[in-house]
Amino acid sequence: MSVEQTYTVTGMTCGHCVASVTEEVQEVPGVEGVDVVLETGQVTVTSTEPLDEAAVRAAVEEAGYQLA
Amino acid sequence: MSVEQTYTVTGMTCGHCVASVTEEVQEVPGVEGVDVVLETGQVTVTSTEPLDEAAVRAAVEEAGYQLA
Repeated sequence: MSVEQTYTVTGMTCGHCVASVTEEVQEVPGVEGVDVVLETGQVTVTSTEPLDEAAVRAAVEEAGYQLA
Repeated sequence: MSVEQTYTVTGMTCGHCVASVTEEVQEVPGVEGVDVVLETGQVTVTSTEPLDEAAVRAAVEEAGYQLA
């Protein structure tokens, strides 16, 4: 199974921010891929199972940003 | 001898940008300390000798930013 879910993350201002969010979200169990669009804050996460939003939120916050 | 010189760098948007500029400028020969103020773009460099501005400019550009 492959699940794709898009979240909105606020506070990213540059490519370093994108890299930080990508890195942390990739560590969430089950995540296969992370695609971040800096301009819109949209973070699309592909995973083997539906993700617990709390886990994604924690990863985003660990990177220093917020889920909208 | 200790020389302090302040430059203005454009394009820094977050703490990661500050870290990148600090890291590159610290590698310029003779540099002892680098202090970056994100809000103003001011980068104060302390060095053992007056620095060649071209070397500082190259370091800032290597980090992905511009000297004003």
